[in-house]
Amino acid sequence: MSFFLKILGCGSATPTSWTNPSSQFLNMEERYFLIDCGEGTQSALRKNKIGFKKIDNIFITHLHGDHFFGLVGLLSTLSLLDRKKDLHVYSPKGLKEIIVTQFRISKTYLSYFIHFHEISTDRPVVVLDDIKLTVKAIPLKHRIETYGYLFEEKLKERKLNIDVVKSINVETCDYRNIKLGKNYVKDNGEIIENSTLTFDPPKPLKYAYCSDTAYNPDLTEWIKGIDLLYHESTFLEEHSNLAKKTGHSTAKEAAMIAEKAEVGNLLLGHFSARYKDRSVFLDEAKPYFYKTELASESKEICFKN
Amino acid sequence: MSFFLKILGCGSATPTSWTNPSSQFLNMEERYFLIDCGEGTQSALRKNKIGFKKIDNIFITHLHGDHFFGLVGLLSTLSLLDRKKDLHVYSPKGLKEIIVTQFRISKTYLSYFIHFHEISTDRPVVVLDDIKLTVKAIPLKHRIETYGYLFEEKLKERKLNIDVVKSINVETCDYRNIKLGKNYVKDNGEIIENSTLTFDPPKPLKYAYCSDTAYNPDLTEWIKGIDLLYHESTFLEEHSNLAKKTGHSTAKEAAMIAEKAEVGNLLLGHFSARYKDRSVFLDEAKPYFYKTELASESKEICFKN
Repeated sequence: MSFFLKILGCGSATPTSWTNPSSQFLNMEERYFLIDCGEGTQSALRKNKIGFKKIDNIFITHLHGDHFFGLVGLLSTLSLLDRKKDLHVYSPKGLKEIIVTQFRISKTYLSYFIHFHEISTDRPVVVLDDIKLTVKAIPLKHRIETYGYLFEEKLKERKLNIDVVKSINVETCDYRNIKLGKNYVKDNGEIIENSTLTFDPPKPLKYAYCSDTAYNPDLTEWIKGIDLLYHESTFLEEHSNLAKKTGHSTAKEAAMIAEKAEVGNLLLGHFSARYKDRSVFLDEAKPYFYKTELASESKEICFKN
Repeated sequence: MSFFLKILGCGSATPTSWTNPSSQFLNMEERYFLIDCGEGTQSALRKNKIGFKKIDNIFITHLHGDHFFGLVGLLSTLSLLDRKKDLHVYSPKGLKEIIVTQFRISKTYLSYFIHFHEISTDRPVVVLDDIKLTVKAIPLKHRIETYGYLFEEKLKERKLNIDVVKSINVETCDYRNIKLGKNYVKDNGEIIENSTLTFDPPKPLKYAYCSDTAYNPDLTEWIKGIDLLYHESTFLEEHSNLAKKTGHSTAKEAAMIAEKAEVGNLLLGHFSARYKDRSVFLDEAKPYFYKTELASESKEICFKN
């Protein structure tokens, strides 16, 4: 169980010299996801030597420009690169119309098919479910309809304790049931507990991307105990009035969410361009949640169990 | 008479590590123009310390993404910066629908008004005319409707030869007519030729931006004798089949246009990402038009008369 996260941009609405607007690349169980796609994401992918073609699923949180203005360019480039595989794009309603309008007017015909999954829900809903993981959309509180995304690895089969299994002559055809957690019954009727025959599988990893959102304690039950939380902190407490007005969070609020949700680690981002030195976000958050880090362009985070 | 050109991007459709897609900033007679606005133009403006707010007119050549995908982000940012002045955007038909669709769906309300000037013409037409200059849209030959733009300073008044004017006691109230080119009639009926009384004004400067276009000799009469021509050269002659197929020009063809049009200088750009070393474009063009330069990101060009 492992995932790899690369920050492609962690700024907010106005462009800065030190980062692109929101975008992240996530590799979980060899599934390659793009989360948000602000302007410049294509260049950031190229700069970080991440192949465009391997991305099959793109998750857009909401339709404010700093989260999706880079998407139409990326979709065009994928066609210029002669992509053939279908692509899946998840977002609130409206993105399909935006993209299709541009391609219609510019007479662009793509080399591949896009499935637009337009989400509408007031509670977490699974939007992608495959053999290795699920992705849930989580409603956030912002000025317009916005969804966070929760990426959860699935529990793997139990691992055989091969020495024990062989010592009691278990038939190979029974391995499958034992890996699935069943006890083993010997020919003489003796029951061997599964816990004797197997080891626990590694704990599945969980990552949630929550941006943009106002402070929302309801969120905590949906992300309880996850390994890593990316939570926006557009402002500091000194601008909490602006945070409230614009549907954003302060660094302290993000840390309080992390603490209440008992997450493993907190990653802050979506910083307002008004703060020239981002270390102030860390200073504000750490007293409330010690295991906090700041996102920065091209930063990499790896988790492994 | 002077103009200042800053290259913000000179790549073509697929993103590269060495340049943004098409965009240029032009200061002519203290009018500030943006020509094309590929993805990343905002960042390039910021990087080059060009104030966003001074730009009042944006010229988009056509609706292929590498020429306009950065526009919606720039328009949004101008609103976040609380612009109040009207903005004028010139383009082929369709851009207004693209922009308005995005703002409608993302519930974005701008702080300023945009005048969309959607052009439709098969011959050069003046799209902007003020006291100091004119801008003409010039039809180009591409896969979709495309316009180049010709920026022309207006002729200034003649300059008084003040020594001569004073020596024959011309009244101040006659200065205006003399500056406009009229002869002067002395009280005794003697006619003083204007050429004796004045110096020629500086020659107005002219700049044309022609991208994207196939080789089109018809263009030459419209840009005859201009000081600087930016002409696309997406390909080299070795890929002339691709140039023909995609409605682009080779470096040789761009140089032939410059030579036929008897322009002062040629600037090549819109280079395909397939050529890692751009000096090959110069090698191909120079035998046909010696005064050729290559565009490159952040390059500056100044003309003064």
